[in-house]
Amino acid sequence: MSAVIERLALIGVGMIGGSLIWSLKRAGVVKHVVGVDKQVANLNRAVELGIIDSKSHLDALHDIDAVVLATPVGAMQSIFAALKDKPFMQAAILTDVGSTKQSVIAAAQAGLGYLPPRFVPGHPIAGREHIGVGHAEEMMFYGHRAILTPHVGCDEQAVATVKSWWEACGARVDTMSPAHHDRILAATSHLPHVLAYGIMESLATTEYEEPIFSYAAGGFKSFTRTASSNPVMWRDVCLNNKEDILYWLDRYQQTLLDLRDKIADGDAEALMEVFARAKRERDAHLVTPEV
Amino acid sequence: MSAVIERLALIGVGMIGGSLIWSLKRAGVVKHVVGVDKQVANLNRAVELGIIDSKSHLDALHDIDAVVLATPVGAMQSIFAALKDKPFMQAAILTDVGSTKQSVIAAAQAGLGYLPPRFVPGHPIAGREHIGVGHAEEMMFYGHRAILTPHVGCDEQAVATVKSWWEACGARVDTMSPAHHDRILAATSHLPHVLAYGIMESLATTEYEEPIFSYAAGGFKSFTRTASSNPVMWRDVCLNNKEDILYWLDRYQQTLLDLRDKIADGDAEALMEVFARAKRERDAHLVTPEV
Repeated sequence: MSAVIERLALIGVGMIGGSLIWSLKRAGVVKHVVGVDKQVANLNRAVELGIIDSKSHLDALHDIDAVVLATPVGAMQSIFAALKDKPFMQAAILTDVGSTKQSVIAAAQAGLGYLPPRFVPGHPIAGREHIGVGHAEEMMFYGHRAILTPHVGCDEQAVATVKSWWEACGARVDTMSPAHHDRILAATSHLPHVLAYGIMESLATTEYEEPIFSYAAGGFKSFTRTASSNPVMWRDVCLNNKEDILYWLDRYQQTLLDLRDKIADGDAEALMEVFARAKRERDAHLVTPEV
Repeated sequence: MSAVIERLALIGVGMIGGSLIWSLKRAGVVKHVVGVDKQVANLNRAVELGIIDSKSHLDALHDIDAVVLATPVGAMQSIFAALKDKPFMQAAILTDVGSTKQSVIAAAQAGLGYLPPRFVPGHPIAGREHIGVGHAEEMMFYGHRAILTPHVGCDEQAVATVKSWWEACGARVDTMSPAHHDRILAATSHLPHVLAYGIMESLATTEYEEPIFSYAAGGFKSFTRTASSNPVMWRDVCLNNKEDILYWLDRYQQTLLDLRDKIADGDAEALMEVFARAKRERDAHLVTPEV
């Protein structure tokens, strides 16, 4: 077991960071949590929920044993810069929950001027389409995966500690390179978000908007669920994992062009082949209780 | 209230037809149901569930007061042809649950040689991604919409009767033209199915297949849920509502090209505008309990 964290700073007090802390507190991993957030409403709600114990500002943070960054990834470089000269940064464990890992490592390097050995980049593979710490759930990560992407100079003990935190949340922890993470998550998470935002954009701007939304059933609601997610977070993901997202988006558009041809040609056999294979793959790999 | 149906033929004994009959039976709308299906397993399961009371073949049907067609739409023309010379077709009420309405009306015209006044084309806006009568649910349509698309020569009493059936299932019934139905449903239902099948096709055929499916979280599962649907049904929909599906697919591809440019340009403001609008639209129109 790792030592108990006396004072942890949660920077970005939202649904994901709040869920992590909630779980860590219940597991006895952390004692006092200092919350930092631009939105006072988030801080106050987190105090009410018992997720944070005190409120602070970036500049006022002191005597911190661990830092969790849980803001949209676009905000991280300036946060690292603000933490640069803090005495506690010499020894504190530092991690994040950002959806893009290469860019967060680059943001740390740029903001701090170096990569701290105790900085362990992380990303839990779970979430909801909601916004704000009021949607935090103690069991958010239970039974899900969390990915750590240590950089070359990472301290092994720090990696083990952050791993133990996610395990305390009930997550199964995998370690991989930042580049591999970004390529895979661009396919499983970033692309579907872009596509769901895209279909809302495509349909909402037509003369059929009203009847379309009136006659949307469960399939459409599932398909577009991720389009209710935090637009700031997903804007930042698109800006910070551009190449990988475009790689998958281009592939997908080519698949759609091929499907378009099959539909236009009325090619029953080819359509059946694609649809049946898609169903087989999904049923084999992805049919588990909805999360 | 409409008169009780003494003998109803359910042609295509699957999830949707089974759910409709189950609900109608509980409501006392129908007494005896004769099931017709190419798959004996469906018929046997439907007898076990009490959904059908007897099994038959198309050729052997007799003394029927109402016919419900609940097969994939591609099978309907030959079924209409098989029913053509049945004496009961003079007086029976005839309806269907197909996802495309212009093509079903054309299939009736082609198969029967005329459009029976008591043929009332219908389509419930509810479903699941499962296959088979074992997934029938008595409450499948409760609180959902059902659409009727009467043709020009429809008997008003027949329309009222079929409307009363769906209302007995707890559905809210709307009437519209077959063309309007097909245009709208192509956007809300047909397109999302094609797109979900497409993403499975696009991702499953890469070297990243295994890690992609391992790291798929709730968002990806929701997004691809419709790709577990019946491939025969959706092949038939694509073949039978081609123009409308291509209309929306082309629009969507254009939206994706625009989004691609915004991502490639790193245009934070433009991405934020699209994502925020998409979220607003979805939250305003589509956030209800998941169905």
